[in-house]
Amino acid sequence: MALLDSNKHLQDSVLNGVNPDLASERLTASFSVEELTARLDGGAEHTRMRRAIVGAIESDPVFSRENQYFQSQNERYEAAVRRAVYLQKKMREMGWTENGPEVKCIYRWLSGDIALLLHRIFMRSISVLGSEKQVAKWIPLATDYQIIGSYAQTELGHGTYLQGLETTAIFDIATQEFILNTPKISAMKWWPGDMGRSATHTVVFAQLYVHGKCYGVHPFIVQIRSLQDHLPCPGVTVGDIGPKMNFEHVDNGYLMLQNVRIPRENMLSKFCEVQPDGTYVRWGSQKINYFTMTAVRISILSEEVILPLMKACTIAVRYSAVRRQSKLKPFSGEQEAKILDYQTQQQKLLPQLAAAYAFHFINIYLHELFNSGYQEIQGRNFDSLPELHAFSSGFKAMVTQYCTSGVEICLRACGGHGYSLLSGLPSLYTKVLASCIYEGENTVLFLQTARFLIKCFKAASAGQPIPPSVTYLSSTKPRECPAKDKLDFLNPDIYMKAYEQMAIRLLSSSAAKLQHLILSGVEKHEAWNQCTVQLAKAAKAHCHYLTVKNFVATVEKLDNKAGIQKIMKHLCDLFALHGIFSNAGDFLYDGYLSGAQMDLVTASYLDLLAVIRKDAVPLVDAFDFTDKSLNSALGAYDGQVYQRLYEWAQKSPSNLQVSPAYAKYLKPLLQNTLSKL
Amino acid sequence: MALLDSNKHLQDSVLNGVNPDLASERLTASFSVEELTARLDGGAEHTRMRRAIVGAIESDPVFSRENQYFQSQNERYEAAVRRAVYLQKKMREMGWTENGPEVKCIYRWLSGDIALLLHRIFMRSISVLGSEKQVAKWIPLATDYQIIGSYAQTELGHGTYLQGLETTAIFDIATQEFILNTPKISAMKWWPGDMGRSATHTVVFAQLYVHGKCYGVHPFIVQIRSLQDHLPCPGVTVGDIGPKMNFEHVDNGYLMLQNVRIPRENMLSKFCEVQPDGTYVRWGSQKINYFTMTAVRISILSEEVILPLMKACTIAVRYSAVRRQSKLKPFSGEQEAKILDYQTQQQKLLPQLAAAYAFHFINIYLHELFNSGYQEIQGRNFDSLPELHAFSSGFKAMVTQYCTSGVEICLRACGGHGYSLLSGLPSLYTKVLASCIYEGENTVLFLQTARFLIKCFKAASAGQPIPPSVTYLSSTKPRECPAKDKLDFLNPDIYMKAYEQMAIRLLSSSAAKLQHLILSGVEKHEAWNQCTVQLAKAAKAHCHYLTVKNFVATVEKLDNKAGIQKIMKHLCDLFALHGIFSNAGDFLYDGYLSGAQMDLVTASYLDLLAVIRKDAVPLVDAFDFTDKSLNSALGAYDGQVYQRLYEWAQKSPSNLQVSPAYAKYLKPLLQNTLSKL
Repeated sequence: MALLDSNKHLQDSVLNGVNPDLASERLTASFSVEELTARLDGGAEHTRMRRAIVGAIESDPVFSRENQYFQSQNERYEAAVRRAVYLQKKMREMGWTENGPEVKCIYRWLSGDIALLLHRIFMRSISVLGSEKQVAKWIPLATDYQIIGSYAQTELGHGTYLQGLETTAIFDIATQEFILNTPKISAMKWWPGDMGRSATHTVVFAQLYVHGKCYGVHPFIVQIRSLQDHLPCPGVTVGDIGPKMNFEHVDNGYLMLQNVRIPRENMLSKFCEVQPDGTYVRWGSQKINYFTMTAVRISILSEEVILPLMKACTIAVRYSAVRRQSKLKPFSGEQEAKILDYQTQQQKLLPQLAAAYAFHFINIYLHELFNSGYQEIQGRNFDSLPELHAFSSGFKAMVTQYCTSGVEICLRACGGHGYSLLSGLPSLYTKVLASCIYEGENTVLFLQTARFLIKCFKAASAGQPIPPSVTYLSSTKPRECPAKDKLDFLNPDIYMKAYEQMAIRLLSSSAAKLQHLILSGVEKHEAWNQCTVQLAKAAKAHCHYLTVKNFVATVEKLDNKAGIQKIMKHLCDLFALHGIFSNAGDFLYDGYLSGAQMDLVTASYLDLLAVIRKDAVPLVDAFDFTDKSLNSALGAYDGQVYQRLYEWAQKSPSNLQVSPAYAKYLKPLLQNTLSKL
Repeated sequence: MALLDSNKHLQDSVLNGVNPDLASERLTASFSVEELTARLDGGAEHTRMRRAIVGAIESDPVFSRENQYFQSQNERYEAAVRRAVYLQKKMREMGWTENGPEVKCIYRWLSGDIALLLHRIFMRSISVLGSEKQVAKWIPLATDYQIIGSYAQTELGHGTYLQGLETTAIFDIATQEFILNTPKISAMKWWPGDMGRSATHTVVFAQLYVHGKCYGVHPFIVQIRSLQDHLPCPGVTVGDIGPKMNFEHVDNGYLMLQNVRIPRENMLSKFCEVQPDGTYVRWGSQKINYFTMTAVRISILSEEVILPLMKACTIAVRYSAVRRQSKLKPFSGEQEAKILDYQTQQQKLLPQLAAAYAFHFINIYLHELFNSGYQEIQGRNFDSLPELHAFSSGFKAMVTQYCTSGVEICLRACGGHGYSLLSGLPSLYTKVLASCIYEGENTVLFLQTARFLIKCFKAASAGQPIPPSVTYLSSTKPRECPAKDKLDFLNPDIYMKAYEQMAIRLLSSSAAKLQHLILSGVEKHEAWNQCTVQLAKAAKAHCHYLTVKNFVATVEKLDNKAGIQKIMKHLCDLFALHGIFSNAGDFLYDGYLSGAQMDLVTASYLDLLAVIRKDAVPLVDAFDFTDKSLNSALGAYDGQVYQRLYEWAQKSPSNLQVSPAYAKYLKPLLQNTLSKL
């Protein structure tokens, strides 16, 4: 408590109700939190703007999340629709545009907790795939919510494998209509958001048939509910698919179509058309579709995947600086230790914190890459598409997988209180887990990256040119790592080279196995299948290596901010060494690292934990989440965790109602007890 | 379909509505599923009994889980209380005793989905810790549910570290009462099951004070609710802690005590007592308490941890044999492939299946160990206690961690449908996840095992005798693994030796580091902290090794059943080689395995996937879960997954009610659209 008397900042904190255990963590930051926040935001100007917008939203009761953890699926859905409609009104009033910076801030704050997000995908797909006439007809209606759209692609029986979709659209020349059908139960549309209870229209993906010939999957605008009474249109069966691990507020739906007729004009026809006489015409390039899918995978990373990890780190690190448990020095008179002072707790949380920064930076890199790729494509140069596709697939898979596991580690590291919904961690986990599944199943995605890498590897071996991101594949293999001291492993050149060699080795050995199998007579597809475990691993290693490399490059560019650069260098080292420590086999396998060197890696890695621990709280503070945005009883800025858990628990519906269970089942048992006691 | 015509069994299946894709998997079993089931049950007699009991429960609507995934916390609680009260009545009617085999079957089937389980812990703690007089007074009341008990140990501020509990019990000589208090908010009891809304009494653990002196934590029986109207007693604040990731049916509670007075006789006093004049007397051994805690950790493994993994495997394997996605051979005319035929899917699911068997067998071993330990203790021989404690801690941590990760892998491997609550997988995951946290936090537990191992290692180095399970620590280190061919890695002696060496190496290097730090002047407790990451890893490796060793021994004993022995040998090999493949660094580190040998491990491991894949469905069938017990739209015996998902979804409350959101928010937007379309 001596600290308390001597320190103005800490005194202020206590006066403001901040737990002294947390306040003291903020006194010793080795860098300016405000500066780091501005850098993460992309400038102090943007930080100010974001804070102003967040302030405006948080003061609006429509956006309150106060009772979120207590609400049923029906209540969550209703609140989410209310927000969506209200937000649209507010945007009009404020003059904010759909793609403006304000709306981005709002969606970041909302973290997806709003309805009608698929309505936006509905609009985007019409904009991209529709003819000018179609865009002119549908977009204004959708913009004003005069119709509500959804996007019906996935079916009960088919997700990632789109060619397998079974819904049919048969052209009827006589009436100039398409007749849509769900030929069997597995063809039922399943999962589309906003479709279960909200949408009046949807874009249906179906196999196009003209004169009995199948032309593959095409998009059609289909009205599914009456605009008068919201009842399903004739031939339409539509409903909600029921409870999920999260996304209670979204009405993911099912849709069955029985001889539903739509006019010829409702097939989205920017790239192809069925003419009145049944002639199928295709023009333009379909590659742009491919690019859209690619872009979506990258666009989800920031808000849907990395943000949850940042929030989970914030909650877990702050809690661990407040939670005291057991004594480091047994039988001593001293206070119990903060759990953040235990090496095992540091080893759980700090690598996740480093990863959150690593992924934030790779996300920026990926966006830059996409923007320049997009410009090339506008100029009809499609050369970068394969690389972009490989990037988007592999990084989507790696980042979602890593972040999911990271959030789970944070949850478990908070013990029982982490398991309470009130900690905010369970909903972060169940949300980020979904990202491993949607927008392409991760294993399938890794294998798409692997296919690209194998091609590049072959090209490199044949001396042909390959894209810049994979030129390392043609580098020559050094015999072994030159590190002699644990400090050598804080040299980025040392660990980057280790990652590079590891990634090359995993890919080249997969390629060799594939080659060997094919040469020994195994059919190509079967040989591929027999190599997929190793190929997926190689693809992941490639992405991991590029993430380390990009982190190193980012740190180098921070040379004008010494304090920030120093702590970022620590995080970069930690991210890299944790990866080596956790995947030791991949580095030891061919002797590139020796066992003795692995000991040095371990020593440096464990040393870093103790170093970064000192800045752990400022490092999560820099993410700049408001308490309302975190919505966590454990993670609030003031660290008053026990008080808040108690206050929030009292509001639970399980406390507001005397359960009928007492009168029905317990009272009859208990009523005669008194005489016996 | 030729198969269909030629095969009676398959024809029958189809007639019975079994999906032919699943039926065909059952035709080729290399062993008798019925025989394997009987073996898992511990005899055909027991299988028959279990099936009869399960049949009786499932025909009883009180035990129906039909709408479980749609219920609110309040509804789940009410249903669970109803079941508990009803079950007690049924037990009396049927003459089933608390510890009889029938009740065990029922609880296995219920999988914890019943209220008043803490009431049983309340009773157990009185039986174990109470004097004869106390047992005679309280047990009959509790047996008849004339009082309802809970067990209030954990506080907001303290879980695993019991010495830190802050609730106080001060003896008042004048009135011969204890005065119980919650001195601060962190001292509030938090988490006890059955306390939030049900219990009338609870065992409170509090720091005992007599004449101002603290005697440490002791148990007290405290009445918390009126027996007349169920309202909290004077000085008692009690309620429900609100929503959690699972266990909605359990009223985990909070409890605050303000000058609550209880008679001196309410301190449980088998081992110690405060006499009327305030003299504190202790007698008997407290070691038996220690043993109880140990036993509880082992007792949860079967039903709460391994069973969920078995269920998750059953669901995911059956679904993967029915789900077809994409073509293994592109552009071919053949049907899409079952996802179970993809190597990557096999690599996800089959190691989990092997682990489920491995843990089933180690669980039997642990129970045998405990039973013999218990007999020794009855004879006042406490020699085996440290080993038993180390076992229970380490295995609880390893098995819960592995099973949690295994269930999550199964969930993800089912893609989007796995994410639906209707798959049953989310609730299995959230349930098993809790087991990593309760009954001792896993990292703390691993470190307790590590402490025991370090002691044994030192003793072994000094030539002193050590317990049988750790004698391997004194074995001499061979230079390297002799395997030369991939088939050598199907030799249990080869892989057991590799595990043994790895476990010894991890422990000895931790011990050396610890020693080195202490010799270089670091304080003991700080040195320990700096080694904890490595110590926890060493403890886990020890448990992993013993699990492999026990699986090998189990397979050897199956020599009278050739078919079963063969498939179990495959599973044992898979479990062992998957462990080496996934933790390659630990085996490569000191060169015990070379990179070339690791390639052989990988080859054998991948070969095994293809072998076991053929028996995957029969292997999960052998777990013998009924459809109602699985409660999964994806995992039912008949494989009609799409039909069932659709049927169940229609029953969701989100479909039974027109959301007020339409009339309130959407209708006003849509009502003027019609004129524009």
